[in-house]
Amino acid sequence: MIADPAEYAGRLQRVHERMRTQSLSALVVCDPANIFYLTGYAAWSFYTPQCLVVPADGDPHLFLRAMDAAGAASLCNVAAERIHGYPEDLVHRPDTHPFRWIAAAVRSLIPAGEPVGVEGDANYFSPRAYFALAEGLPANRLVDAGELVNWVRLVKSPYEIGQLQIAGAIAEHAMRTACERIEPGRRQCDLVADILTAQTIGVDGHGGDFPAIVPMLPTGDAAGTPHCTWTDQPFLDGEATTIELAGVHGRYHAPLARTVMLGEPPQRLAETAKITAEAMQATLEAIRPGATGASVHRAFDDVIRPHGLRKDSRLGYSIGIGFPPDWGERTVSLRREDTAELAAGMAFHVILGMWMDGWGYELSEPIVVTPTGFERLTNLPHELTIRR
Amino acid sequence: MIADPAEYAGRLQRVHERMRTQSLSALVVCDPANIFYLTGYAAWSFYTPQCLVVPADGDPHLFLRAMDAAGAASLCNVAAERIHGYPEDLVHRPDTHPFRWIAAAVRSLIPAGEPVGVEGDANYFSPRAYFALAEGLPANRLVDAGELVNWVRLVKSPYEIGQLQIAGAIAEHAMRTACERIEPGRRQCDLVADILTAQTIGVDGHGGDFPAIVPMLPTGDAAGTPHCTWTDQPFLDGEATTIELAGVHGRYHAPLARTVMLGEPPQRLAETAKITAEAMQATLEAIRPGATGASVHRAFDDVIRPHGLRKDSRLGYSIGIGFPPDWGERTVSLRREDTAELAAGMAFHVILGMWMDGWGYELSEPIVVTPTGFERLTNLPHELTIRR
Repeated sequence: MIADPAEYAGRLQRVHERMRTQSLSALVVCDPANIFYLTGYAAWSFYTPQCLVVPADGDPHLFLRAMDAAGAASLCNVAAERIHGYPEDLVHRPDTHPFRWIAAAVRSLIPAGEPVGVEGDANYFSPRAYFALAEGLPANRLVDAGELVNWVRLVKSPYEIGQLQIAGAIAEHAMRTACERIEPGRRQCDLVADILTAQTIGVDGHGGDFPAIVPMLPTGDAAGTPHCTWTDQPFLDGEATTIELAGVHGRYHAPLARTVMLGEPPQRLAETAKITAEAMQATLEAIRPGATGASVHRAFDDVIRPHGLRKDSRLGYSIGIGFPPDWGERTVSLRREDTAELAAGMAFHVILGMWMDGWGYELSEPIVVTPTGFERLTNLPHELTIRR
Repeated sequence: MIADPAEYAGRLQRVHERMRTQSLSALVVCDPANIFYLTGYAAWSFYTPQCLVVPADGDPHLFLRAMDAAGAASLCNVAAERIHGYPEDLVHRPDTHPFRWIAAAVRSLIPAGEPVGVEGDANYFSPRAYFALAEGLPANRLVDAGELVNWVRLVKSPYEIGQLQIAGAIAEHAMRTACERIEPGRRQCDLVADILTAQTIGVDGHGGDFPAIVPMLPTGDAAGTPHCTWTDQPFLDGEATTIELAGVHGRYHAPLARTVMLGEPPQRLAETAKITAEAMQATLEAIRPGATGASVHRAFDDVIRPHGLRKDSRLGYSIGIGFPPDWGERTVSLRREDTAELAAGMAFHVILGMWMDGWGYELSEPIVVTPTGFERLTNLPHELTIRR
């Protein structure tokens, strides 16, 4: 929870403004990152249904199971009288759903006859929850409000940028640890233990918070697929490993990816690494207020195309608060199709994942857009790491 | 992935049988734990839409983003020709959804005019995905199939019980580590680093896999609320901490909770701990084939009621495969309302969380139901841990 009440007041005000442009009488927020943004509530209770209901003009109400509601007021900025606990016997029942109870309670908070926004694609908001809500609010029409709060989160306050900078320092520390400790014959899980320790102990007196995603380290043949976690098998000499992890502080994430070669790199890998480093430089230099995902992508493409390389996936995405399973904000992406203009205070994970047939190379950089360009959140070389 | 193809064949057969009783022409499975159960696919790709489509008679098809589809055949038991990657430019777009593409592809796999089951309350299956699927399959009616695959998972095979036993050994190791290393003045995050290391290195040559839930350790005043994670503040002399964690091996979870007192325990805590240990013994002894959640709850209640204690939340829930954010199976719960009969091969996390006004006490035990009673997966005393 943040000490400064003005920070929360500003966030709520911006959400209210967006709600007005969509004529919503209330917004039902289920994404844990959005609940945290508006309230500071971060407990691991999102595996059972919960939501924050934001009336068009008033303060939000938090709905969660009785067990979690009991102490929630001490964990977030919602006053106890606006925290509502549904009965424990509604949890994981095949014949009923907590959102029935929630809908009945919400009826008294919102005017009849007006549309209520929901987060149609939020994690932890299921179709069964949606239908229970719709049935329990027969006098209101549910409308998909899109990623309304996510878009409010896009431009960071000075406080948030400070959190991201600490997260970046932790990410750098964890990646240095990973690159130093990986060696042939060592089990993948033993390296991961070192990474988790570095992430959690943190740096400079700032502890690390739980990451939205565990360390991913596809190695050898699996390095052609990006989202592998780990096994208890050893790293092998002559194989490359891509490592992706995040530094996290107060739920703010700075993700970071590097590739480590154990032994002499094959020529194709060394060449791809060199081109990707050049492409990273060009990509970063294209980032500034007024640029778009499309223009940033063009700068990248201009470097790789002459080498016969191509990349279909996006070059990056906005970052900030993260809860499992994702540290992306799901708003602006750096790709051909994206025409939203970048602005100072936005933060991105620029990730150049080059996945070839059966192998891959990853290089990334978390950055904040500044009034004149960009600021890196970590400070590691952009080369392929080679351990001979 | 399991080496034995017969294990997967049996699982699929049992899913097909249940589908027939519900007259489903196909089942769309989104829960990562259910996808893993049927295919062995465990990569961290579930933060973007993905699903396994199980036709009534045939082999399943896996749908996921192109980036993840590229290497999925090497990570699971689904043949490459039944793995389908949707285009990368559909990821996190405000104007379209991957389930539109998936629905179009599914149309050719299933007969028109027959109902298609969906997991209406699965994590990572959103209302927007549901509506895109319904719109793209106009000749089929979507029906909520409930937790169909979860119920098939309820009784474990000998292979699965072996995985749970390894997970139990890792849980015990991690909890011993936690109880030994907690001390006044030490930061919470530093203890968590030790727990994560123990969880990940594992025991007896078996590495630990990523847990569905990070270690939770509400301490001091926060111990009255169960799902707090950690901060970088120090533990204090005179305060109690409840620690809940899991040992995980090959995605199978053995969760475990204990409470540690730093210094002399207040009388009310010592008394609650003593009663809870008695209640645990009575609860475990009530577990056997043919018992029900209701009968187990009665055995528990008979111990605590004479002491003026009460507990509204359930005493436990079935466990097995877990993916974030939950290690519960969401089928049978140990509580008054549950009349399903226990059977040999089921596994439960028996968790006696006693949350009082502003403080709490937790004691748990992961167990497997045997033909004659139960087998504990961990072996730690049931007393309050006191560190003076």
